[in-house]
Amino acid sequence: MNFTAVNPQFEQRVRDSFARQAAMALIGATMTQVEPGRCAIELPVREDLTQQHKFVHGGVVGMIADSAGGYAAFTLMPADASVLTVEFKINMLAPARGERLIARGAVLKPGRTLSIARADVWAVEAGRETLVAATQQTLMVMHGMSEERL
Amino acid sequence: MNFTAVNPQFEQRVRDSFARQAAMALIGATMTQVEPGRCAIELPVREDLTQQHKFVHGGVVGMIADSAGGYAAFTLMPADASVLTVEFKINMLAPARGERLIARGAVLKPGRTLSIARADVWAVEAGRETLVAATQQTLMVMHGMSEERL
Amino acid sequence: MNFTAVNPQFEQRVRDSFARQAAMALIGATMTQVEPGRCAIELPVREDLTQQHKFVHGGVVGMIADSAGGYAAFTLMPADASVLTVEFKINMLAPARGERLIARGAVLKPGRTLSIARADVWAVEAGRETLVAATQQTLMVMHGMSEERL
Amino acid sequence: MNFTAVNPQFEQRVRDSFARQAAMALIGATMTQVEPGRCAIELPVREDLTQQHKFVHGGVVGMIADSAGGYAAFTLMPADASVLTVEFKINMLAPARGERLIARGAVLKPGRTLSIARADVWAVEAGRETLVAATQQTLMVMHGMSEERL
Repeated sequence: MNFTAVNPQFEQRVRDSFARQAAMALIGATMTQVEPGRCAIELPVREDLTQQHKFVHGGVVGMIADSAGGYAAFTLMPADASVLTVEFKINMLAPARGERLIARGAVLKPGRTLSIARADVWAVEAGRETLVAATQQTLMVMHGMSEERL
Repeated sequence: MNFTAVNPQFEQRVRDSFARQAAMALIGATMTQVEPGRCAIELPVREDLTQQHKFVHGGVVGMIADSAGGYAAFTLMPADASVLTVEFKINMLAPARGERLIARGAVLKPGRTLSIARADVWAVEAGRETLVAATQQTLMVMHGMSEERL
Repeated sequence: MNFTAVNPQFEQRVRDSFARQAAMALIGATMTQVEPGRCAIELPVREDLTQQHKFVHGGVVGMIADSAGGYAAFTLMPADASVLTVEFKINMLAPARGERLIARGAVLKPGRTLSIARADVWAVEAGRETLVAATQQTLMVMHGMSEERL
Repeated sequence: MNFTAVNPQFEQRVRDSFARQAAMALIGATMTQVEPGRCAIELPVREDLTQQHKFVHGGVVGMIADSAGGYAAFTLMPADASVLTVEFKINMLAPARGERLIARGAVLKPGRTLSIARADVWAVEAGRETLVAATQQTLMVMHGMSEERL
């Protein structure tokens, strides 16, 4: 689906907000795409992100999916609003291993109070992408709470 | 609900597996309780775990909830089996802030192939606990895949 | 958890609203309990509610769980508000068969805009209850939309 | 995604199974499309399927989404297997009203034990489709349990 951003500075706002997420820096995630209703986040696979089977921990996969979907929704929000995750659901489809993960979030339905998004996570290994997780998510638009003032 | 562990060494197995989760070490989480069908994981709140509003990132909250529910299920599995998260759903109920978070996982129904668990996450601030997240989760029993051999 | 209803007429409002749900009449569900933050709905098992294995259809189980959780949340809402399901997640734990099903909804966290509830569904067979489904749900408080005016 | 059915008689099996779902007959749903990895179910809107706001009950929307996703997964299963819903999550995006609803299920990932599917539900009004619900679902492959023997 194609959406139009009401805030012409949406990309800068999204990138500034992402830069304030210390947790994304901790795991080494970067934001690689920001478009109206879409956002991609990449994560180089590191040993210290793994679970007991040496795949990336499902919760870490959930972190980048949550952020990709949340920021996809944020691109369509007005300049004086902030975004909050209400809930998300994630299915693990394959072991998260390889060189890096890419979480691609896309808005299903933007709303005045709530927005719904999906984010899928792909593992890249030797140039080949494998779908490793699928999420569906509910976001809340926090009007009058611009992040810059927080 | 009260359950009985089929593996008398269940606690050691769970603690050994948790110790192999590098991602838990990265965020500073520790396992504080292991009982048949139950598991608790604690996480001291740190600046580098936060999102843009300076609360603990929802994905990090999801990480400890996922692990607490998964290990609660693992306590009831046979000695030659491993555990895998199929999916989980998390609702964020309040900002995750304070001194530390506690994720408490409990099995709803153990099964031969699939187990269902719930994990709730509490924030502790000045000795008071606030419920900050609630999860519901599906785990898979991987028979013949003892973690020690992985 | 114990909650206090802000609307003293909460029980009548909930029962009136339930009585307007034609779909509940179609499947033969009745509301058996209404308390602040809690609601139970019963469903006699009928042949015409089944799926291909002759158990009650998972979607029908979801219907009464959705209603039980939604009305549990509705008991705590002000008199001028209406309730709407934002989303729910349901795990099927055992075949839904027997004489009747009981869905018991309970609020986890009431909110000004969103409420979170859980509803579990039990099958009753020869006086014994078996947990057959577990749900977790997000509800929206629709202020200024009293159902009586709809 | 494009999938190949391992059972050449997949369409007949799916249609036979659907015909055994008494609950689908009760609400008046019909199966309109069956392809490898895909399935569509239509539901004419009726007064007796509504909730208190006179929209189709969210649980009924969930019923056809659950069936559409489940049968999409069933198209890819071997001839001696049966399908079971493990869990699903549904977001309500808009009021379910109009002349009829169409649930379109599609497999995200087929598996030997578990399959993951998504199903979206559209409302048709005056020839225009509106997305009213989005689901994500986990299905179990029940090997050696052909439905014909049940």
